[in-house]
Amino acid sequence: MTLTCGVDIGGTKILGGVVDEDGGIVEELRVESPATDVEAIEKAVTGLVKELGSRHEIASVGIGAAGYVDKARARVMFAPNIAWRDVDLKAELEQSTGLSVVVENDANVAAWGEFRFGAGHDVDDLLLVTVGTGVGGGVVLDGELFRGAFGVGAEIGHLRVVPGGLLCGCGNYGCLEQYGSGSALVREARRAASGGSLLARHLLDRAGGDAAAITGPMITELARAGDPFCIEQLRDLGRWLGEGIASLAAVLDPAVVVLGGGVSEAGDLLLDPVRDSFGANLTGRGHRPLAQVRRARLGNRAGLIGAADLARR
Amino acid sequence: MTLTCGVDIGGTKILGGVVDEDGGIVEELRVESPATDVEAIEKAVTGLVKELGSRHEIASVGIGAAGYVDKARARVMFAPNIAWRDVDLKAELEQSTGLSVVVENDANVAAWGEFRFGAGHDVDDLLLVTVGTGVGGGVVLDGELFRGAFGVGAEIGHLRVVPGGLLCGCGNYGCLEQYGSGSALVREARRAASGGSLLARHLLDRAGGDAAAITGPMITELARAGDPFCIEQLRDLGRWLGEGIASLAAVLDPAVVVLGGGVSEAGDLLLDPVRDSFGANLTGRGHRPLAQVRRARLGNRAGLIGAADLARR
Amino acid sequence: MTLTCGVDIGGTKILGGVVDEDGGIVEELRVESPATDVEAIEKAVTGLVKELGSRHEIASVGIGAAGYVDKARARVMFAPNIAWRDVDLKAELEQSTGLSVVVENDANVAAWGEFRFGAGHDVDDLLLVTVGTGVGGGVVLDGELFRGAFGVGAEIGHLRVVPGGLLCGCGNYGCLEQYGSGSALVREARRAASGGSLLARHLLDRAGGDAAAITGPMITELARAGDPFCIEQLRDLGRWLGEGIASLAAVLDPAVVVLGGGVSEAGDLLLDPVRDSFGANLTGRGHRPLAQVRRARLGNRAGLIGAADLARR
Amino acid sequence: MTLTCGVDIGGTKILGGVVDEDGGIVEELRVESPATDVEAIEKAVTGLVKELGSRHEIASVGIGAAGYVDKARARVMFAPNIAWRDVDLKAELEQSTGLSVVVENDANVAAWGEFRFGAGHDVDDLLLVTVGTGVGGGVVLDGELFRGAFGVGAEIGHLRVVPGGLLCGCGNYGCLEQYGSGSALVREARRAASGGSLLARHLLDRAGGDAAAITGPMITELARAGDPFCIEQLRDLGRWLGEGIASLAAVLDPAVVVLGGGVSEAGDLLLDPVRDSFGANLTGRGHRPLAQVRRARLGNRAGLIGAADLARR
Repeated sequence: MTLTCGVDIGGTKILGGVVDEDGGIVEELRVESPATDVEAIEKAVTGLVKELGSRHEIASVGIGAAGYVDKARARVMFAPNIAWRDVDLKAELEQSTGLSVVVENDANVAAWGEFRFGAGHDVDDLLLVTVGTGVGGGVVLDGELFRGAFGVGAEIGHLRVVPGGLLCGCGNYGCLEQYGSGSALVREARRAASGGSLLARHLLDRAGGDAAAITGPMITELARAGDPFCIEQLRDLGRWLGEGIASLAAVLDPAVVVLGGGVSEAGDLLLDPVRDSFGANLTGRGHRPLAQVRRARLGNRAGLIGAADLARR
Repeated sequence: MTLTCGVDIGGTKILGGVVDEDGGIVEELRVESPATDVEAIEKAVTGLVKELGSRHEIASVGIGAAGYVDKARARVMFAPNIAWRDVDLKAELEQSTGLSVVVENDANVAAWGEFRFGAGHDVDDLLLVTVGTGVGGGVVLDGELFRGAFGVGAEIGHLRVVPGGLLCGCGNYGCLEQYGSGSALVREARRAASGGSLLARHLLDRAGGDAAAITGPMITELARAGDPFCIEQLRDLGRWLGEGIASLAAVLDPAVVVLGGGVSEAGDLLLDPVRDSFGANLTGRGHRPLAQVRRARLGNRAGLIGAADLARR
Repeated sequence: MTLTCGVDIGGTKILGGVVDEDGGIVEELRVESPATDVEAIEKAVTGLVKELGSRHEIASVGIGAAGYVDKARARVMFAPNIAWRDVDLKAELEQSTGLSVVVENDANVAAWGEFRFGAGHDVDDLLLVTVGTGVGGGVVLDGELFRGAFGVGAEIGHLRVVPGGLLCGCGNYGCLEQYGSGSALVREARRAASGGSLLARHLLDRAGGDAAAITGPMITELARAGDPFCIEQLRDLGRWLGEGIASLAAVLDPAVVVLGGGVSEAGDLLLDPVRDSFGANLTGRGHRPLAQVRRARLGNRAGLIGAADLARR
Repeated sequence: MTLTCGVDIGGTKILGGVVDEDGGIVEELRVESPATDVEAIEKAVTGLVKELGSRHEIASVGIGAAGYVDKARARVMFAPNIAWRDVDLKAELEQSTGLSVVVENDANVAAWGEFRFGAGHDVDDLLLVTVGTGVGGGVVLDGELFRGAFGVGAEIGHLRVVPGGLLCGCGNYGCLEQYGSGSALVREARRAASGGSLLARHLLDRAGGDAAAITGPMITELARAGDPFCIEQLRDLGRWLGEGIASLAAVLDPAVVVLGGGVSEAGDLLLDPVRDSFGANLTGRGHRPLAQVRRARLGNRAGLIGAADLARR
């Protein structure tokens, strides 16, 4: 059985693994990411690949990178959180590792992973929505990974959902990312808590009385324990996501919508409101099949598994 | 050279034609559409195809239908303005005409027409935006017509652009169609005129003093003649469209955006504001190639030409 | 003790009463309102006043009218639901009844009634928000009824809360009335029910399976019985109202906000969300006193009691 | 003729003057404001009053302070840009100057100045809108300065005009101040210029090629010279202001709206769009008198003149 290597380069960590043809991880390594130092990142990736290669026969390498990757799956044109500016990552890593390399956007490889071996294994058309610090997305159409004319499609977090809305890191106002991300969840909870809302009292207690110490996992934990305020915060987040997904589905018409990213660990506390809101807002509802909304299955390994699989194509 | 027949079934008229392999129209026929009577429409289409077939050797027939067409390009599941409800149009027309038939959504065939022989002939990835009574869309990706998992994608007029906005015919609030269509153009102009705006005086005069008599072509005509109010109305429309296209391009990443539909006859009076607004609102602008915004070339024949071409595949 | 007569002319009924100096109703009469026939309304009011006058010694008459009343408290300039167009109601009723008459806007007299004898009896500055078919308002400042420069102030239902939002009966888009009224409550509930929402099932059952038969009182009744969907509908309504009141309080700085109108009968199911939302959205919260939000006390008699009291000034 | 002293304490300067009964300034002094040091501000004000008092016989002192002033016109409860937190400014200044002192909000004293001696001298009901770094307001009703129940009314810059809109310094989202202020004008112009808009080219040239160096006066200057982009920026600002004023007028029903603050120096380039937008958005337009929109007359001396006049009441 041929093995390939998948690497997911994030803002804070690099996750690499040797993956078999069924998406099984044979060995996995993780190193901290020296996020702002491009050379250091390449060294770290090279080291990680070589170490895995010393113990396994690797046919090729797939890289998931958090940035705009060109149509040729070689150059990173731009990355918001890493200092890549038009870097030919494919050429550099092929030279340093001696292996064939393919580079792809991180959310795209995660979508591919879920499509091949996870929550979308049974369909041909899938929309992955990752809800973490930001909102990312990947799309599979007719069994092929969608890339767009220039390689920069599926940036679903930057759909404008509120005209003149909140300022986004991308420079626009009112992007979905400002309303449907984990950052939005935390921002709104902190805002309520620091505003003295009695409803947020338990959450504030949980954060030691300091609104700025509130985190996403705290909200999920209290929601699971039945705290009405935290349940409602997840519901409000889910409402925005469901409304955004309804807009996306009007355009993309997926068979399945997969929710991934850290916040999706809240499970049905997030997914049920997403489903309600999606079903209530989809144009033409009642006259068309309704896409299923499912939770991602591969967790934070979706990227490396998808990247490794792309590397074998 | 093989000839095929293309038919575009709209709410008010049926346009049919015999088309050659280069997209050239050999003969064209037009009949009024008995919109609400499904049987009468089928009879009219059959008659039209048979008449064209009596003078030309037709290999197959492509139909563009204003409704949701299933993935098999056979059944019309639902149409907003025609009484089709889950009708196997393909089977019925194949029986009545004795020819092989393919059915496709009307905006999709228009997109295919512009891609093959019109404003998008030189690219592989295209987004067609038709601005008429409503806002429709069609998408070509990697040289293939995009259809979605269930055949109902590319409904770009129902992207939600204003939360809690205007009620749309589809039952949702705040759809792009309510802000970027010819109907929106006329509604806003009538509103200003009937509200006594001095700015709208010339337009009101042109409509014989009756705000309800204002039409889209009047606005375009006065804008061409330099009337500042009408120029501004087209600019406001173009701003909404450009903002919507920026959201769509974040997801679809097209190489070219083609503007069609009746309102696109306003030319650069509409397209320049669309370009400005699109360029100012695209996420990642400056770090990615910018899709060109072009005017459609095939006018209201894009649908029949595209349908005829699909029929030969 | 001097007695005066108060009359509240609504779109569907005319309510009149003889009121003492403490706001006590000595006798009350009610007749159907022939809403569109101005002459018939005047006859009905005259008859009602004369009948009450035959049994009590009435010093003067106060009229609450659902329309724009001029600064002199005499002419009705315009009414949305009654055919008054610049009618000198004061002169006509003084002639027909032989008594001194004062005319005032219906929400203003209700605000005055609550200020003098109801939920605002202990403060000098009050904002009344009436939530019925529409959203109305009345304002008392420093112990005086606020009227504005032209007599048409306090039209709080027409504060714009959503740019490009829902079309209002007043011709504008996005007025508070479209989001915070009883009509909005019913519209949203019907929409969910007819959209097939499982959440709305109990409500739909209660309406005999016909979404169009859903009414405001049904929603309140089910909410009281603990139905989560109906509780949530009232909460959504309360959220809009609380946000609107926060904007109004930034400008008007009232000591007390009184919620009246038919929907306020939902009590704390509506008022608690209003309080939460108001408290969370008031600018400068934490650095300024927070107005109390109270339920109206005089019910649908606030208008006639307030009108009668104004008549004695 | 009795003379009083008016002092306007802003974030960057303190302006004081001796004013006669007709609003005439007999002598004026200006000192830099040590904004964050409360004690230093009091010393500076005391010194300024004493110096003026050494040359004129001053009966009393009026202070305009940029903060929440309590109902008794004595304590500053909170100020956004100065470190006042519940300070009895009246008591402290009466002790240090030996004169009777009245403290009032800075926008309120400006409204009073324009009402008594400026653009609103001929009416009883006035709304002042100051458009500077922020958006402030003051209201005169029936010839009296409106203060609200707790002294903190007329905060018109914090009317919410966009749900989920831009984050405001006050902690809320979507306040008018974020769309209708000089800061908004500059933000949007910089945004267009740094985004590479060709339209903004002249403005960018004027700022030496540095978008961050664009200022409000540059925009006004180029707009006066006919630059279409700058004219449009002022028009967009005016549109937001006119829409906000339409909401405010629905509630406050003023006879005159006075536009003041630094940005109002753009004159009709700003006021005409405000008038158009106000007229097009006022609820009930056509059935009610339309308030006039006028430019302020007293410039940045409105505050000290108004404060001095309040001191004599």
